[in-house]
Amino acid sequence: MSRYWSRVVRDLTPYVPGEQPQLPKLVKLNTNENPYGPSPLAIEALRAEIGDTLRLYPDPNAERLKEAIAASFGGQGVVPRQVFVGNGSDEVLAHGFLALLKHERPILFPDITYSFYPVYCGLYGIAYNAVPLDEAFRIRPDDYLVPNGGIVFANPNAPTGRFLPLPEVERLVAGNPHSVVVIDEAYVDFGGESAARLVARYPNLLIVRTLSKSHSLAGLRVGYAIGHADLIEALERVKNSFNSYPLGRLAIAGAVAAIGDQWHFERTRHAVIASRETLVADLAALGFEVLPSAANFVFARHAGRDAGELALALRERGILVRHFQQARIRQFLRISIGTDAQCQALVAALREILSA
Amino acid sequence: MSRYWSRVVRDLTPYVPGEQPQLPKLVKLNTNENPYGPSPLAIEALRAEIGDTLRLYPDPNAERLKEAIAASFGGQGVVPRQVFVGNGSDEVLAHGFLALLKHERPILFPDITYSFYPVYCGLYGIAYNAVPLDEAFRIRPDDYLVPNGGIVFANPNAPTGRFLPLPEVERLVAGNPHSVVVIDEAYVDFGGESAARLVARYPNLLIVRTLSKSHSLAGLRVGYAIGHADLIEALERVKNSFNSYPLGRLAIAGAVAAIGDQWHFERTRHAVIASRETLVADLAALGFEVLPSAANFVFARHAGRDAGELALALRERGILVRHFQQARIRQFLRISIGTDAQCQALVAALREILSA
Repeated sequence: MSRYWSRVVRDLTPYVPGEQPQLPKLVKLNTNENPYGPSPLAIEALRAEIGDTLRLYPDPNAERLKEAIAASFGGQGVVPRQVFVGNGSDEVLAHGFLALLKHERPILFPDITYSFYPVYCGLYGIAYNAVPLDEAFRIRPDDYLVPNGGIVFANPNAPTGRFLPLPEVERLVAGNPHSVVVIDEAYVDFGGESAARLVARYPNLLIVRTLSKSHSLAGLRVGYAIGHADLIEALERVKNSFNSYPLGRLAIAGAVAAIGDQWHFERTRHAVIASRETLVADLAALGFEVLPSAANFVFARHAGRDAGELALALRERGILVRHFQQARIRQFLRISIGTDAQCQALVAALREILSA
Repeated sequence: MSRYWSRVVRDLTPYVPGEQPQLPKLVKLNTNENPYGPSPLAIEALRAEIGDTLRLYPDPNAERLKEAIAASFGGQGVVPRQVFVGNGSDEVLAHGFLALLKHERPILFPDITYSFYPVYCGLYGIAYNAVPLDEAFRIRPDDYLVPNGGIVFANPNAPTGRFLPLPEVERLVAGNPHSVVVIDEAYVDFGGESAARLVARYPNLLIVRTLSKSHSLAGLRVGYAIGHADLIEALERVKNSFNSYPLGRLAIAGAVAAIGDQWHFERTRHAVIASRETLVADLAALGFEVLPSAANFVFARHAGRDAGELALALRERGILVRHFQQARIRQFLRISIGTDAQCQALVAALREILSA
């Protein structure tokens, strides 16, 4: 604390990301990274972009990337001016909170969801109500059909992995014509279905995506949003009042190529899905309850063992998983889907720990 | 305008960056880019960083880069916890405004300076007073020795290029023990002297720097701040409430290597300085008044010709310079220092235009 701090800073409770230890040989299943590398076409495009032109500013509007993203939504009629791009989906979400969710009324989000949402509210002075998930950790759309300043949730939700089917999503969006509904689809490619096709019909729907998970580019920092051009313009106005060039030349080039490589994308996401199904069965066999997951992680609790102790015991064996200290989910572990070998290492370690 | 926009967005006047046309063959002297490419060591480090590890998040604290930056200040005793890093100096400045300049009293900055400062004030609801530069476009420290919520200016100033000598800077900082003074040293390597050595003595001083200019990495997006650890902590709190990972793996690797290449840095900045001195003489010979510049650009007006018309005539000849529509400086052109060949092309074009 210092007398030079603004009141905003004094009152903040920052987000705490999963740890990124710089140690080799860890089985790192704590930050939902993709176990497979990025598209070889992205690697090639990045290599080609390295050179003297790095002395020049990038295109502040990243038009080339907006075009690639719009095109990737194929038949759904998304055009570039319905696309916003930023430095990871966290930056896109941050701008979204300030541009579209800061109104008189409190915004709504689930009590169990991405823990960055309340942090954004603290940063921008946005009041919120946390709406409890049901006892099976599902979002109930009816709970959101009340006056509000906006709604945000992840679908599939984090850290539960549960997916809210599109008809339910549409009911929630259609029932809130006076406020913006932000759907964070960071994990949708691993088993969900995107609400992108609703964008053309609902001017209050903003979908946020990232290249960090299903495109294996967490290290490059690219995220985006799609929605009605009016919503995108609001994001652009905030972005252009904050940082004109959030995406460098390499980020733009790598992202364009990664989005264009449909084959690599399909192959790796299906590999992750297959590994998840095996892991779910293995965890169940070890006595875990595993929530149905449409994401690249599972959320599981053991009937007889404390989650914090399990996380610690795994850590001692060089395996990182994520454990949250929040009341309703304190007995759960969030386990990212690794390669089959990593998943097997996890299962073997758990078997050993549980039999001790 | 849309009913979904927050009041903040409705009231914003975003910053307008210099244009980044995607056309080849332009002589682009409008955005203060370095005419020389980045360090070969940076190029090599970027190449080495491209690969499967891009699937992993970067170090959210970029410790390696903070260490490299601290080390680059050599004898001045800067330690990594006195360093903050961000996605270009614009992001660093944005966080600085919210974290350290948002108080009860209005902040102060020159009437002629980087035009992003009032934009940040609009974004965060910070009141400000624009303090007129003197008739020679110099900052007068005495004007800033009045109660205020904070002070920010560029040194060398933009777009004038004028440098406020360090004893004057120190008087201004020492005279404001109750508020933070942010000095934007984007251009300092081209002829100014950094106030970094004052950091150890003044807990209210924050210095912001960029790798976009003197390190030729505008395309990579890396900026930083140095200051008392308490000020840095305020920036970290805002950053960790906004986006945990503003710098990707490539940005970190490239920046570390660029900062380490002292030889390339010295060679290119001296080349720019030499070209500037020649250009200043050539412009004077053509009848321009050129403000004394310590930056990689010059700010010049012609006694007999309208600046807007000159900018347009240059544009027709494939040469871009920057022209601002602000009252006191409407008759000036801001011309970035290019290679000697680019500067000669500019001078030849101006000679042709002026003789027509």
